[in-house]
Amino acid sequence: MQSKALPGFRDLYPADTALLQKIFDVWRAVSARYGFEEYGGPPLEPLELYTAKSGEEIVGQLYHFEDKGGRAVALRPEMTPTLARMVAAKASDFKKPIRWYTIPQLFRYERQQRGRLREHFQFNLDLIGEPGPLADAEVIAAAIDVMRGLGFGPESVRVRMSDRRVIRALLMGAGVEEEQLGAAYAAVDKIERDSRDALTDRLKGAGIERPIADRVLDLAEIRGLESVLGALDEVTDGELIGDGLTECHGALANMGLVEFVDVDLSIVRGLDYYTGIVFELFDANRSVRAICGGGRYDDLLRALGGIDLPAVGFGMGDVVITELLRSRSGAPSTPSRLDVYLVAVTSSDVPEVLRLSHALRDIGIRVEYALKQQAVAKQLKIASVRGSGRAILIGPDERESGEVVVRNMDTGTEEQVPITALTEDLAWLGGRETP
Amino acid sequence: MQSKALPGFRDLYPADTALLQKIFDVWRAVSARYGFEEYGGPPLEPLELYTAKSGEEIVGQLYHFEDKGGRAVALRPEMTPTLARMVAAKASDFKKPIRWYTIPQLFRYERQQRGRLREHFQFNLDLIGEPGPLADAEVIAAAIDVMRGLGFGPESVRVRMSDRRVIRALLMGAGVEEEQLGAAYAAVDKIERDSRDALTDRLKGAGIERPIADRVLDLAEIRGLESVLGALDEVTDGELIGDGLTECHGALANMGLVEFVDVDLSIVRGLDYYTGIVFELFDANRSVRAICGGGRYDDLLRALGGIDLPAVGFGMGDVVITELLRSRSGAPSTPSRLDVYLVAVTSSDVPEVLRLSHALRDIGIRVEYALKQQAVAKQLKIASVRGSGRAILIGPDERESGEVVVRNMDTGTEEQVPITALTEDLAWLGGRETP
Repeated sequence: MQSKALPGFRDLYPADTALLQKIFDVWRAVSARYGFEEYGGPPLEPLELYTAKSGEEIVGQLYHFEDKGGRAVALRPEMTPTLARMVAAKASDFKKPIRWYTIPQLFRYERQQRGRLREHFQFNLDLIGEPGPLADAEVIAAAIDVMRGLGFGPESVRVRMSDRRVIRALLMGAGVEEEQLGAAYAAVDKIERDSRDALTDRLKGAGIERPIADRVLDLAEIRGLESVLGALDEVTDGELIGDGLTECHGALANMGLVEFVDVDLSIVRGLDYYTGIVFELFDANRSVRAICGGGRYDDLLRALGGIDLPAVGFGMGDVVITELLRSRSGAPSTPSRLDVYLVAVTSSDVPEVLRLSHALRDIGIRVEYALKQQAVAKQLKIASVRGSGRAILIGPDERESGEVVVRNMDTGTEEQVPITALTEDLAWLGGRETP
Repeated sequence: MQSKALPGFRDLYPADTALLQKIFDVWRAVSARYGFEEYGGPPLEPLELYTAKSGEEIVGQLYHFEDKGGRAVALRPEMTPTLARMVAAKASDFKKPIRWYTIPQLFRYERQQRGRLREHFQFNLDLIGEPGPLADAEVIAAAIDVMRGLGFGPESVRVRMSDRRVIRALLMGAGVEEEQLGAAYAAVDKIERDSRDALTDRLKGAGIERPIADRVLDLAEIRGLESVLGALDEVTDGELIGDGLTECHGALANMGLVEFVDVDLSIVRGLDYYTGIVFELFDANRSVRAICGGGRYDDLLRALGGIDLPAVGFGMGDVVITELLRSRSGAPSTPSRLDVYLVAVTSSDVPEVLRLSHALRDIGIRVEYALKQQAVAKQLKIASVRGSGRAILIGPDERESGEVVVRNMDTGTEEQVPITALTEDLAWLGGRETP
């Protein structure tokens, strides 16, 4: 008998799911505040949806097969191709800008990465139909607000932001040829991981010799908006080219979020479909771990879906955030507590327990009771194990008098409450909000 | 270029997703009130997880393939085998009864059913470790409360409830042999769809001749608890055998839910692993459509997961509920409205719009504003298209005076509010609850 999930797949027990739902709740709440609406798509898609975007080499990283109808299909590794199809199919139905988000589970089969997950959940937020820097700022602000919503400040989460138009202009100003740009981007992207010597060799391999190679690496080390603008002063139309980055940065300052933001020219984002602002969110303490990555991709929807609309967005996975939350609090959040456990003193009290439990549940209170006859002490023990905030004993005397004792399970204090009042005034629940 | 989802898979636009999330919210809220915790599992599982339960014939209905590691895998068609594995792996970690629920997306590839969905979402709620009728009642009550939470009363939703122990005892009392029980169950199950003549022929084919066949069909037509108990009076140990059904029915009466319930001996549930109470929820107006089905399956967890625990639960899909909600209201629910649209009168007002938008979002208000310079009339038009409840104009005069006009987009009425007061007292939002 098979007794385990497949390698890289997770069985999510209630404590895991509670933490995940907490993250999903913040993703949804922040999206709603920014006017974004949720959409969804199929976890299984035609394989060509992905090869059309990423080429045949993507197939090696996918779960793909032929279905019983002879179709080549794949478990989705990303949402953007689905998004492109959905927007293209009904573009005229939606007022621009389109503000959509989704929380899909994504799948990758990578042979070499033993022990690593092959599925994860990813929050995708995209703003479609608006090319300006305020749209970029809007999306970056939403990413920051997610982290703020989870309790992280600028001391623990950093945004690194660059602009592909800026780095391109600076690289070409430094003498890099158009066809060498890919190699130059790759070196810029590695500036914090590899030595300058190694990168100089790599650039030389791509035909970028010294002193141009030195200039490329110097550009990759530029930090801060002022320094970027200073470098742009040396380039034709440099001021104009810097406007997008400047305005996006300024908008984040107006929103009070700029203390999270570092302009950092080493941020390239590997995927070559980005056309403007690019950004990543990092754990400030272990800066290699990206929490989120995104940027502007103005040509991609046309290439994928045949619809010519500018777009900006990001993807944010559940795994790094979960690790951050667990490491911060020391322990995962516990599943939601029960509000009250009803104790039947004798078997003839069960009908009243059933009636009352349902009346309380009907006003949103979380209730349990023993599903078989048990001693009062045993029932109270279960109430405690289940983390119930209160216990109420119902016996013949209580039914006779119409009053029950409400026991606070944390403090042991007790209070007399008329049964009829239990559903009217929830003070006995100890400050729990009325549902 | 591929421009469509696979046959049987849904692209879920925001209006679809909003309706689905509304259903999920009710599933989660009712589960929480009953003390159930959410869990999750992999959408891709070892194929043998399903063949072990349902035999090789299930393979014809699955999306299955060999992964790159040579494993036979399948997209999950149901959650129970995953649940059995998860409970078996950590049974001692959880206090019994275990109350768990999940909302997986499930997959079936059925060649013949063109136009039908091949994926759906299914709410699964299971109570594990308690064999008594109060546990059955608990689970049925949760199913009813979901429908009540969605606005359906006993005039539109019916529970049909039976007990496999009861029908078995009655069938054997009528002269059906042990090895004929499967054929008898199949005839009982079909009593409302097929003619008595056809069913009599079918029973004859299984070796059940008249007058036993007549008695089988008469049993299938018994409705109401009293009639069932009357029939049981004729059978050895009949009263004892009827206790479970009687107690479960009584508990639902104590909870005030019995007006939803019809005892109906034709309810068998095709799956032969049910061992006690079985039930289905139906749309009262089109009774062929089951909203939900479930029951007690005391032997299955041992067979699947090697852990000997009694269990009762149900599965409830999203598709029939969605149809019911759409047909009731005439139109699907609209995605959530925006609370306020901020209008910048001139480009120099944008910084204040950005500052204020973020301050409002930070207290949970849903805000949008124009992401490029546009005429005030155009911005107000977008505010209206986006369904914003309020619009606030911010121009040089407003920044100077520190007061803004809040326009109610539904009524056209306007109100002067100090900018500093916008985030302090939310009366200007028109009764929206403070987040």
